[in-house]
Amino acid sequence: MEIDGDTEVQQAVRFGLFHVLQAGARGESRPIPAKGLTGPGYDGHAFWDTETFVLPVLTLTAPDAAASALRWRQNALPAALDRAAQLGFAGAAFPWRTINGAECSGYWPAGTAAVHINADIAAAVVRYVDATGDAEFEQDTGMDLLTHTARFWRSVGHHDAQGQFHIDGVTGPDEYSAIADDNVYTNLMARDNLLAAADVAERYPDRARELGIDAEESASWRDAAQSMYIPYDEAMGVHPQAAVFTRHQVWDFARTSPERYPLLLHFPYFDLYRKQVVKQADLVLAMHLCSQDFTAEQKARNFDYYEPLTVRDSSLSACTQAVMAAEVGHLGLAFDYLGEAALLDLHDLEHNTRDGVHIASLAGTWIALVAGFAGLRHGSGMVRFAPRLPEGLNRLAFTLMLRGNRLRVEVTPASATYLLAGGDPLNVSHHGTKLTLEPGKPQEHRISPIPSRPKPSQPPGREPARRHPIPGPPA
Amino acid sequence: MEIDGDTEVQQAVRFGLFHVLQAGARGESRPIPAKGLTGPGYDGHAFWDTETFVLPVLTLTAPDAAASALRWRQNALPAALDRAAQLGFAGAAFPWRTINGAECSGYWPAGTAAVHINADIAAAVVRYVDATGDAEFEQDTGMDLLTHTARFWRSVGHHDAQGQFHIDGVTGPDEYSAIADDNVYTNLMARDNLLAAADVAERYPDRARELGIDAEESASWRDAAQSMYIPYDEAMGVHPQAAVFTRHQVWDFARTSPERYPLLLHFPYFDLYRKQVVKQADLVLAMHLCSQDFTAEQKARNFDYYEPLTVRDSSLSACTQAVMAAEVGHLGLAFDYLGEAALLDLHDLEHNTRDGVHIASLAGTWIALVAGFAGLRHGSGMVRFAPRLPEGLNRLAFTLMLRGNRLRVEVTPASATYLLAGGDPLNVSHHGTKLTLEPGKPQEHRISPIPSRPKPSQPPGREPARRHPIPGPPA
Repeated sequence: MEIDGDTEVQQAVRFGLFHVLQAGARGESRPIPAKGLTGPGYDGHAFWDTETFVLPVLTLTAPDAAASALRWRQNALPAALDRAAQLGFAGAAFPWRTINGAECSGYWPAGTAAVHINADIAAAVVRYVDATGDAEFEQDTGMDLLTHTARFWRSVGHHDAQGQFHIDGVTGPDEYSAIADDNVYTNLMARDNLLAAADVAERYPDRARELGIDAEESASWRDAAQSMYIPYDEAMGVHPQAAVFTRHQVWDFARTSPERYPLLLHFPYFDLYRKQVVKQADLVLAMHLCSQDFTAEQKARNFDYYEPLTVRDSSLSACTQAVMAAEVGHLGLAFDYLGEAALLDLHDLEHNTRDGVHIASLAGTWIALVAGFAGLRHGSGMVRFAPRLPEGLNRLAFTLMLRGNRLRVEVTPASATYLLAGGDPLNVSHHGTKLTLEPGKPQEHRISPIPSRPKPSQPPGREPARRHPIPGPPA
Repeated sequence: MEIDGDTEVQQAVRFGLFHVLQAGARGESRPIPAKGLTGPGYDGHAFWDTETFVLPVLTLTAPDAAASALRWRQNALPAALDRAAQLGFAGAAFPWRTINGAECSGYWPAGTAAVHINADIAAAVVRYVDATGDAEFEQDTGMDLLTHTARFWRSVGHHDAQGQFHIDGVTGPDEYSAIADDNVYTNLMARDNLLAAADVAERYPDRARELGIDAEESASWRDAAQSMYIPYDEAMGVHPQAAVFTRHQVWDFARTSPERYPLLLHFPYFDLYRKQVVKQADLVLAMHLCSQDFTAEQKARNFDYYEPLTVRDSSLSACTQAVMAAEVGHLGLAFDYLGEAALLDLHDLEHNTRDGVHIASLAGTWIALVAGFAGLRHGSGMVRFAPRLPEGLNRLAFTLMLRGNRLRVEVTPASATYLLAGGDPLNVSHHGTKLTLEPGKPQEHRISPIPSRPKPSQPPGREPARRHPIPGPPA
């Protein structure tokens, strides 16, 4: 990955990729922990960070490592099946934190109840198969993981009297809310999980039989997915993070002095959980990972609504805020968030890098660049780009592994050039225009400027540092 | 208290009153613990049981002991003020469990978040003043407690954009739900607390000034009380225990075998909290303590809705179910619940009486008889009776202390006789008919039979034992 215009971010993304690759190598026999291979933080445990932040990078750069990491989840299925049974559910309940596959989380409202991890694993499977076309993996590891997580969702959720499907009493990505009904992120991700499981069951009937999936079961997955309830606040014109969220009292940010962050060290969860205050991207992450479920207008409104509520007391936030800020047209703000994600460890921004690097934030640096400034979204066989550089960056160039071939993308302020190294032609889109890339034939396409919109505010004292790119060689 | 027709219950109510009086004596210097003075259970801690179950009995039988117990709360105000400040609220936050006034509860969703205890204390103040007319107490202890709890509620709740006042993220009496919005019991009790505080501030302007209450503050209490949101499920025609409760999935009682009770020992809270399953009377307790807020029709429908959901995994339930079963006309069922409350310790029904008696259930036996079969409700200067005996009881007679005078009540299947021992005339009502009782002049009034309604069911295996009264002398 090459970045012209900010040598510090250039160095950081290489530092990040080194740690991601180091931690991700030989993943089949052990998880990729939250601190990579670098320190004792989180006791060496792995979380949803792996599938949501690390695997998207590995899937497109070192896909074998992504497959290995998912095989580790597959190997941990017996423990997840046991855990689901212990909790009273069907299928598999993957642990919130673990080394050997068994649940190691004690504080259950932000552990056991954060069931979205099951959909996060399923999404990583779908993403890997979409990027690689690896049918062997899909039938084996993929189908094992999709089936048992779909069974979990079908038994955790339920229909109401009007036939809508609800997932009640769960915790989404934002750990300043818990035990809420119909978390939008969880419901959308669970819906995708259910649909993906039904699709592979249809595609591989023999394996479906082996797994005991009959037509009634896969139909019940599709039905639950299609009836999934997604709350929307008509009056405010935004998606509540979970049911009723936007009706709750807004945290008193004006009276929260800077030294009282992170809030979890200074305020009781009793108060945090009751109010509109967001530790880390939650609805905003849903807009990135379930991009097609939101209109451009909704994305812009939602993003601007959640910015003033999001305190970023988690390292799993800045990169996602960078991605969505870039998409909705706040390019300078996206650059600021990219800087924060990139330099979290190199500048020890949280004063805890001695415990180990923040592997999700390091991976997130790559995500902020590729999904943010190049606007990459891929899924259902489609590869979409919507590149747009912030002021200060002159060039962003990177290579993706897609279906076994290398796709080189080079973005400048005025245009993007796509070059497929070999293999079959590849359909991609550039800002909505469909292109068919032929191997060895670069295509250059113009980038039109995006209309500027008023920048949203952040909670006082929680604004990301303004990114002043360092064009020269690093100090 | 005399009961003809069931010597076992007769013995039990005396046993209960003995323990209540023993535990309640000299209450000003220490709390009345959940186990009375009899055992090490709950480490000697006191809970909301004191104000909600024990003090209603002492208020009407040994009012000085009730006043002492509330003075103990007053003495504990400094710790409660500190606790509120620590939690970020105004006023006083009384501890969920305590010996010396400091919070000793660790599991916060069923401790810290069970803020209804503050309104329970306020209600005990109002009840004591209503029964005694003790103006000195009202201005001192009473006003201290009402003011600081009202301040707490005003800061815990908030208005929505439509001006309705909500109390979000709290736990009501039922400990199989937690961190819910707009718990009906909590909201109604908080509303009464706010109104009572505003009333005494108006009545005692000098003390109000001392306490720093100005017209704006008491107006804000009245406003919050009048705007208090009380959820109601129009489609089902019942009150949800808390917002959205009736939309949640119903617990699978049919597949819960008897040996898996109490549920808290066999199922994770993650699952309990998400579903319609009630550990102990919650909405049903609201219907007893805030009787005027529900129509007779609503009471009947609500009672029948919650019976099949209520598993009585708490000793703080049977007596309340007895009271409301009697009110809505399920007299036999009320008798069954009375039997369970009465014999909990004498028959060691929960196999844990070695840890000490269940003081709330012992007090609850008296409540089941007086508020249940005599139908007593008192408040706002009104004393209402709606007596009606179940089959098997031939006579229920008891004496209440009201405004310093003894009121003797004697109920038979056909009539009730009221005799005021001395003092000023007293207005009471008998099944809705207003009576003025003159000292020394008994009045006898007929009891008309109540139309029978189909009995509601309980979760399989959780039906109360059918009460077969023992008419002879106890074995």
